[in-house]
Amino acid sequence: MTIERLKPIFKVRKTFILLILILIVSRLNAQEHDKVLRSIFDEALTDTTAWAQLRYLCKNANGRLAGSPASLRAIEFTSRAMKEAGADTVWLQKVTIPHWVRGKENCKVVSRVMGERELTISTLGLSVATQPGGLNTGVIEIRDFEELKEIGKSRIEGKIVFFNRPADNKLINTFAGYGGAVNQRLSGAAEASRFGARAVIVRSATQALDDFPHTGTTRYPDDVIKIPAVAVSTLDAELLSSWLKKDSSLRLSLVTECRNLPDTISYNVIGEIRGSGKPDEYITAGGHLDSWDITEGAHDDGGGCVQAIEMIRIYKKLGIKPKRTVRAVMFMNEEISGTGGKTYAAEAAAKGEKHYAALESDRGVMSPRGFGFDASDKRLQKLQSLSKYFIPFNIRDFDAGGGGSDIGPLKALGALQIGYIPDSQRYFAYHHSANDTFDKVNIRELQMGSAAIASLIYLLDQFGY
Amino acid sequence: MTIERLKPIFKVRKTFILLILILIVSRLNAQEHDKVLRSIFDEALTDTTAWAQLRYLCKNANGRLAGSPASLRAIEFTSRAMKEAGADTVWLQKVTIPHWVRGKENCKVVSRVMGERELTISTLGLSVATQPGGLNTGVIEIRDFEELKEIGKSRIEGKIVFFNRPADNKLINTFAGYGGAVNQRLSGAAEASRFGARAVIVRSATQALDDFPHTGTTRYPDDVIKIPAVAVSTLDAELLSSWLKKDSSLRLSLVTECRNLPDTISYNVIGEIRGSGKPDEYITAGGHLDSWDITEGAHDDGGGCVQAIEMIRIYKKLGIKPKRTVRAVMFMNEEISGTGGKTYAAEAAAKGEKHYAALESDRGVMSPRGFGFDASDKRLQKLQSLSKYFIPFNIRDFDAGGGGSDIGPLKALGALQIGYIPDSQRYFAYHHSANDTFDKVNIRELQMGSAAIASLIYLLDQFGY
Repeated sequence: MTIERLKPIFKVRKTFILLILILIVSRLNAQEHDKVLRSIFDEALTDTTAWAQLRYLCKNANGRLAGSPASLRAIEFTSRAMKEAGADTVWLQKVTIPHWVRGKENCKVVSRVMGERELTISTLGLSVATQPGGLNTGVIEIRDFEELKEIGKSRIEGKIVFFNRPADNKLINTFAGYGGAVNQRLSGAAEASRFGARAVIVRSATQALDDFPHTGTTRYPDDVIKIPAVAVSTLDAELLSSWLKKDSSLRLSLVTECRNLPDTISYNVIGEIRGSGKPDEYITAGGHLDSWDITEGAHDDGGGCVQAIEMIRIYKKLGIKPKRTVRAVMFMNEEISGTGGKTYAAEAAAKGEKHYAALESDRGVMSPRGFGFDASDKRLQKLQSLSKYFIPFNIRDFDAGGGGSDIGPLKALGALQIGYIPDSQRYFAYHHSANDTFDKVNIRELQMGSAAIASLIYLLDQFGY
Repeated sequence: MTIERLKPIFKVRKTFILLILILIVSRLNAQEHDKVLRSIFDEALTDTTAWAQLRYLCKNANGRLAGSPASLRAIEFTSRAMKEAGADTVWLQKVTIPHWVRGKENCKVVSRVMGERELTISTLGLSVATQPGGLNTGVIEIRDFEELKEIGKSRIEGKIVFFNRPADNKLINTFAGYGGAVNQRLSGAAEASRFGARAVIVRSATQALDDFPHTGTTRYPDDVIKIPAVAVSTLDAELLSSWLKKDSSLRLSLVTECRNLPDTISYNVIGEIRGSGKPDEYITAGGHLDSWDITEGAHDDGGGCVQAIEMIRIYKKLGIKPKRTVRAVMFMNEEISGTGGKTYAAEAAAKGEKHYAALESDRGVMSPRGFGFDASDKRLQKLQSLSKYFIPFNIRDFDAGGGGSDIGPLKALGALQIGYIPDSQRYFAYHHSANDTFDKVNIRELQMGSAAIASLIYLLDQFGY
């Protein structure tokens, strides 16, 4: 055999050996990543720091609506917690916020046929107050905005419109059920106002049949007369509906003494670990620090906040050094008008920051099912290849469609949008209500979520998909 | 072309057409199954019968340990509920049960260094009582049975052994964590007795750090002196351990006035829908009706019981007619000695019944993750092919390893063993404790479980894998 004839064989051999080497290295890397994830879960599942932080937010900074004294305690506390977690830098970012304050509120149904009953209500955020002394008028029950048109101004004018379309409990994903009902809360006041209604009372947007009003914002476009808006518990919505069937001339007495004060200043709380390789690329993980004023905000969204702080603590404790700069961000004012998220993105844009990815945890503290990604099919496939690392933790869902309202504005900067997806079944039993308390959170479900988030961000940073 | 030459073409065509027809039919069947599952979930998610049944079991038949008055109320109630659900036949099956009754119980730690404290305890099922007036003696802390040998009889004799090995919180599946700790409760008294201990106090077998004692049985082989055994809350286990570090000569005063009464009679509650095609083949789905005496038994296992009744109700309501005879069974006395399951299997064997499959729901009322099957690889693959029908409901886990203690005895009769697997993270926060109450159950998680079980049994019956 001549040397000439041997060359191709050498070439094949070289390629083969190189291939084997690559395989070995990537296998070693994979094993390394497996180990890192295991250590992240071990740390999360055996530490109670985040649990204690959540207790503080729920018990000492409950009702932390943007602008409230409780929100300032929450800012101070999480800023300290971020330092204790070991963040390289912690700072507050000024955010302009609307300043809405609840006042006295009550609602009584009075029927000559059925009698009198107090209804369990909660004024919607941004709602205007009733005139002094409240209002007393008839009620008309409506299922959707189309029906407003059908019934017409003549029959609606001067009345309180009662929006009573329930969430569709057949939908497996409770966010879909909520999504199908929540327009009544968001736009019901505005729509009814166009037909001359004097106020609206809206069935709480939840799958639960309970005695908690589930509040939230209502929005008034500039071209409508602002009328008061309240949420009523689903049980009292059922009651009011059944009374109306027996006495269509019953009346509601409604008082809401809320106030829309001038805009004021609050803060996003930001903590970061400076990247070891690509410090000018940013990954953000966070939740929102504000909660509704009537709740402890355990699931919405104290949990999401402490999970982001926990990511920092875990990286520091385990010596994980991300290549990119990783930030935990507690956004302010998600609930009313999202100025925290908008300000964060605007400042990032102004500084020319390169935002690689952003993850939001704002779907409650239930067992992790996975993540949702807002990505092209090709990128999604790559991201889904990371799911194999989560098999030992029984986290299987790597699906399209994710993000969150606070990180939404970062999309324009090119940041991959990621939503942390816990099991959804229980969420709307708590959402925006006094039922969202610390005792409804299970420590392991919180810990599993922290570990899942810290793990995904670690892998994303490693693989750069 | 001659006719002779055309024949093979006709043959090919025939085969092809047959294949297409089979494909169409199987596709139609698949669509039919999809529709049936959708209707099962729709019905489960919009009906509150099972929820109301669970409330009754928790509030009116709480503490329904086999032999208790509450257990009789539970038998009567579920028997009526099964009839109301539309079962073709409902009957009670006599079961011999041990009759253990809790009495006064208390435990005080007395230290000259640290002071005095009542500990939160619960006597273990089948435990013997202390001598009248209780006992007062020193304590020795032990992590595992090996340590008993190392320390030796001379240092253990006359003392109370304090088993304090915690569940390993790093294990993702909480049943594995529980499994690694529970031998202290099951066999601790027996093992310590061999070394001359006078009693045992066992750290509750749970991942939770709480103030609830989590009880359960303890077992005495015939060759040991029976000594009293109690569970202590994990918080008080931590306290006792820390006090022991500061004062190894502290003493415990322990009183347990429980009684082991003569065996008595109770009942399994059985409801069945007679099979339309293979009535002599049986499929069983169930949970256990008894609960510990100190709990409402919402997750363990009221939920499993009402989910099985719900399967009957849903089939009847929707007109689903299984080919095989489908039974919902509420087993009695799972908690103490499993005679309900044993009797059910023994009677089935005596009658020569052919038991095709059995499913147990006894892992709490959390969101469904899937099912575990005790099957050969080949059969498991077939069973896993059914998972595609569950994709719309985000139920993805079709794994090896399942069953349940009540259906275990049916294995000898050839019944495929299936465990219903909900998310496990919260379960042991409730298990065997006063924390297992109705308010810890979410209605949608209960409903999703009922639908999952009814769906799997439907498909199994259809496919006969």
